[in-house]
Amino acid sequence: MAQDGHGNRQVRYLRRPVGRLEESSFAVEDAPMPVPAEGEVLLRTLFLSIDPYMRRQMLGVGGYAVPLREGDVMQGRGIAEVVESRHPAYRPGDVVFGEIGWRLYAALPGESLRPVDRSVGPLSLHLGLLGSPGLTAWVGLTDYGRPQPGETVVVSAAAGAVGSLVGQIAKLRGCRAIGIAGGAEKCAHVVRDLGFDACLDHRADGLEEALRQAAPEGVQVYFDNVGGAVLDAVLPNLTMGARIALCGMIAHYNATGPVAFRHLQSLLDKCVALTGFRIGFVPPERRAAAAAELMEWFRAGKLRWRETVSDGLETAPAALVGLFEGANTGKRIVRVAPGEG
Amino acid sequence: MAQDGHGNRQVRYLRRPVGRLEESSFAVEDAPMPVPAEGEVLLRTLFLSIDPYMRRQMLGVGGYAVPLREGDVMQGRGIAEVVESRHPAYRPGDVVFGEIGWRLYAALPGESLRPVDRSVGPLSLHLGLLGSPGLTAWVGLTDYGRPQPGETVVVSAAAGAVGSLVGQIAKLRGCRAIGIAGGAEKCAHVVRDLGFDACLDHRADGLEEALRQAAPEGVQVYFDNVGGAVLDAVLPNLTMGARIALCGMIAHYNATGPVAFRHLQSLLDKCVALTGFRIGFVPPERRAAAAAELMEWFRAGKLRWRETVSDGLETAPAALVGLFEGANTGKRIVRVAPGEG
Repeated sequence: MAQDGHGNRQVRYLRRPVGRLEESSFAVEDAPMPVPAEGEVLLRTLFLSIDPYMRRQMLGVGGYAVPLREGDVMQGRGIAEVVESRHPAYRPGDVVFGEIGWRLYAALPGESLRPVDRSVGPLSLHLGLLGSPGLTAWVGLTDYGRPQPGETVVVSAAAGAVGSLVGQIAKLRGCRAIGIAGGAEKCAHVVRDLGFDACLDHRADGLEEALRQAAPEGVQVYFDNVGGAVLDAVLPNLTMGARIALCGMIAHYNATGPVAFRHLQSLLDKCVALTGFRIGFVPPERRAAAAAELMEWFRAGKLRWRETVSDGLETAPAALVGLFEGANTGKRIVRVAPGEG
Repeated sequence: MAQDGHGNRQVRYLRRPVGRLEESSFAVEDAPMPVPAEGEVLLRTLFLSIDPYMRRQMLGVGGYAVPLREGDVMQGRGIAEVVESRHPAYRPGDVVFGEIGWRLYAALPGESLRPVDRSVGPLSLHLGLLGSPGLTAWVGLTDYGRPQPGETVVVSAAAGAVGSLVGQIAKLRGCRAIGIAGGAEKCAHVVRDLGFDACLDHRADGLEEALRQAAPEGVQVYFDNVGGAVLDAVLPNLTMGARIALCGMIAHYNATGPVAFRHLQSLLDKCVALTGFRIGFVPPERRAAAAAELMEWFRAGKLRWRETVSDGLETAPAALVGLFEGANTGKRIVRVAPGEG
């Protein structure tokens, strides 16, 4: 039952990051094989999802899935296969989604899991396009960005899991999509592979002016994944009555001091409606609407989707650190069980 | 026709303020007596309204009533008496509201004016409780703050024209009202005279913690008139799903550099809906609803209202400068015509 002839292995979260997140916040170690209690199932982890919110969770910020304490096994959503079941809804061989945690094997309550439909596509899609990033992109843009056909939609972290979908959905809704991403390579990917109308490199100088050139009529909708200086550059480019869907503030998560803004007054001058949102607090009926349309678009071949995948549980800490260093394109996944696809 | 035997006098706006607004941005000078053209009326100014938005207008920020250029006669709303009319809707002796400007006499198109009902109360009320500040307080709180009975409403610049009404309206809607104001005297006024449940002095240390003590269950609605450090202190005290009605950012208007925030992430963590608004862009039907309920409350004696009045056109520059120095309580008015009230 143990993988590679070894027992269980896990990643523990050792200490709170101060400033930059480092791999030294984690330790990979052997662990006892869990034994499922009544109502639980024993799971073999197939894929883990690596997401920006985890940085907030590590700081103990309330409202995220499980507040992490130092010394805990690292939490994280994933896809797993049922090895043994003591819950009536699951049988060995079933595939499930849940808060699996960073470990090869876990025993979890059946109630905490959700069955995964193997027929839709690669299993990892349930962590991305058809999982939280997809729902986040669709709900945030549709309900908080409220784009009208012909409007200009700007999205930061445009090469990331959420951002890459936001721009594609904006195009499907008849809008102009402008991405902001870090580096020429990501920008090229966003325009060439994802079909955005333009993509601006926030590492280059003069983002505010570059956006003014790219959107001379102004920006009606900004889907923000990063906050900080990028938000500050977008603010003076907003039109009267613009909407901001505030989905992430990666630039703030690693900040140890205050973050400076020059143009926050644009929120007032332009009568901006800004909505902070987190997919876990969005009404279930909106998530269902998102899942239905994303599935329809995916099956019709209308959505491009890219994953950055690394192999082995021990790559998870570096994968998470890399999210904040701009290291990945598309959805960041760790393939825990060799050979799964 | 000229007041005190002299001709016309006016205040010109000389140069753009950099940083702190100073009286030296203005010059008071004699001017020719205007002659009304066809369709215009000759007006004698009775009262001028002194408002924070003027600081933005002086910087040429778009969307405010009239973008000001250096050398222009200073713009400003006021109440005036018709001296001579070449417009069919007005007769000598009528009282009107409009963009009068800082001058003793003005000739303006009749179309740009609105008649004022002398029977309601002191004329200056039409610049405050029943004018833009009243409408701003009512619409901002009702439509963007959306308070529910039993919720806690916090308002900054609570002793000012807008803030003093926001807290009173919150109480009339069954909420708990907490003010934030500068100095013990203003705070005492806000609680004792205006009936707020509490008022915190932002000049004292530890505003963030003081608010946590005053609102241990958190803040559902923040009506912000100032931005900056006060906003930053309120942000971590917001509850999940809180609303911010962003009405003013006085702390930013005089800032020459960036403004630093420690807690902007609360917008995301607490899923906050923030709406910047300006009363001139609010739908007319909402302004009408505001005017109707404010009048009803005022006639029923349910709203307390205070003005700070100075006499003479030449006091207008100091009155405007004082707004940004925390010098006034209630609505700031300049009585231009002696003996009016």
